[in-house]
Amino acid sequence: MNPRALGQIRALTFDVFGTVVDWRGSVIRDGEELTRRTGVKTDWGAFADAWRGEYAPSMKPIREGARPWVGLDTLHYENLLATVKRLGVEGLGEQDLRWLNLAWHRLDPWPDAAGGLARLKRKFVVVTLSNGNIAMTVDLVRHGNLPFDAVLGAEVARQYKPHPQAYLTTVSLLQLEPSQVMMVAAHNSDLRGASKAGLRTAYVIRPTQSGPGQKTDLAPEGDWDVVANDFVDLAAKLGA
Amino acid sequence: MNPRALGQIRALTFDVFGTVVDWRGSVIRDGEELTRRTGVKTDWGAFADAWRGEYAPSMKPIREGARPWVGLDTLHYENLLATVKRLGVEGLGEQDLRWLNLAWHRLDPWPDAAGGLARLKRKFVVVTLSNGNIAMTVDLVRHGNLPFDAVLGAEVARQYKPHPQAYLTTVSLLQLEPSQVMMVAAHNSDLRGASKAGLRTAYVIRPTQSGPGQKTDLAPEGDWDVVANDFVDLAAKLGA
Repeated sequence: MNPRALGQIRALTFDVFGTVVDWRGSVIRDGEELTRRTGVKTDWGAFADAWRGEYAPSMKPIREGARPWVGLDTLHYENLLATVKRLGVEGLGEQDLRWLNLAWHRLDPWPDAAGGLARLKRKFVVVTLSNGNIAMTVDLVRHGNLPFDAVLGAEVARQYKPHPQAYLTTVSLLQLEPSQVMMVAAHNSDLRGASKAGLRTAYVIRPTQSGPGQKTDLAPEGDWDVVANDFVDLAAKLGA
Repeated sequence: MNPRALGQIRALTFDVFGTVVDWRGSVIRDGEELTRRTGVKTDWGAFADAWRGEYAPSMKPIREGARPWVGLDTLHYENLLATVKRLGVEGLGEQDLRWLNLAWHRLDPWPDAAGGLARLKRKFVVVTLSNGNIAMTVDLVRHGNLPFDAVLGAEVARQYKPHPQAYLTTVSLLQLEPSQVMMVAAHNSDLRGASKAGLRTAYVIRPTQSGPGQKTDLAPEGDWDVVANDFVDLAAKLGA
């Protein structure tokens, strides 16, 4: 990217699910633990995909103003009940389901995440800008020992990405202009939203975030400012 | 304190000015730097005290609903102009004053803060619950290399301590009950506010936070759950 534009960047804001943490592998791992504990069997890969499939549609009414704000833990639980029903998974009690819903608080980071963040942090403010609610993201940050400076994003805006308000609230809380902030995400749709809100963009390729058969987000689909293979590569490309 | 009540605590929320960082010493240090740079002389200790003296009155109209929310950087700047005028300090331009106002982003931590927090963090979620705005607190956390899990407090509540909303918004963002959260502060007034909101309380004695002649907050003035000499002592007393 233009070195002058790069020199203006003060903060990096990070998408979390898929970008910082491996949601799919971690949900499968917790599903398999539930199978060992309860004997209830299902294809946890297909289950994780179906559950995640409900994610985008569930936020839509909130972004469109048709439903008041609720946090992602609440949406995840509604989506979990729908997924259990649709896939015909039987035998899980409410306590099991509540525990499984918290799988999203126990997602493992990608191997490069903590080290890359530590490098990026020396040069930039590094904060989360996730659709995950604060408590969920705090748990993820603690679980992965991720050295973020702050946990911001959708809940402080009471609006979900890619609505501009989700990005601009975090930018405003950092007392920066959108052009001073770079959104880091493994999802082209997230970067399109960030770019529309005036932020700079860094695309990090996470080719297995949606599993071994991933078909989307395998390459940049926009003129993003930086494209990197992981957070260590991103640090190198940003001179951190 | 009652070991059973202690066992319920999941998160510690920290006051910052005076409790985590030495605001007075750091403001004096930056004032002295301004004197070296501009030749403008004043008693920076008296200046720091007068500036800080405007702090509580400036938040009052906001807590009482007579003024819409503005962040602490804005109040600090208004209070700085009033202090400069009242003490008759002449010769500082707007650029100098803007720089001096950011002294509150460069406050040094007490020597025990980072190490004590690292210990406490192993057992508890550790977050800021400061009247400082997010950008200010992020700068302080980065400046002092303070391992907080998140930066919350007044700005996310759009209300200043000791208003109950300031405490309860942070508690709610952490998805906890007030009884699961312990407020850590070197100010009895802050702990009174936290206690009224239902939080547990830890008093940390900072006998020079207001300078060598400190007359207030030299001892606990309430039945606080824990009293500690510093953050390392607090970690020991909380079994962390």
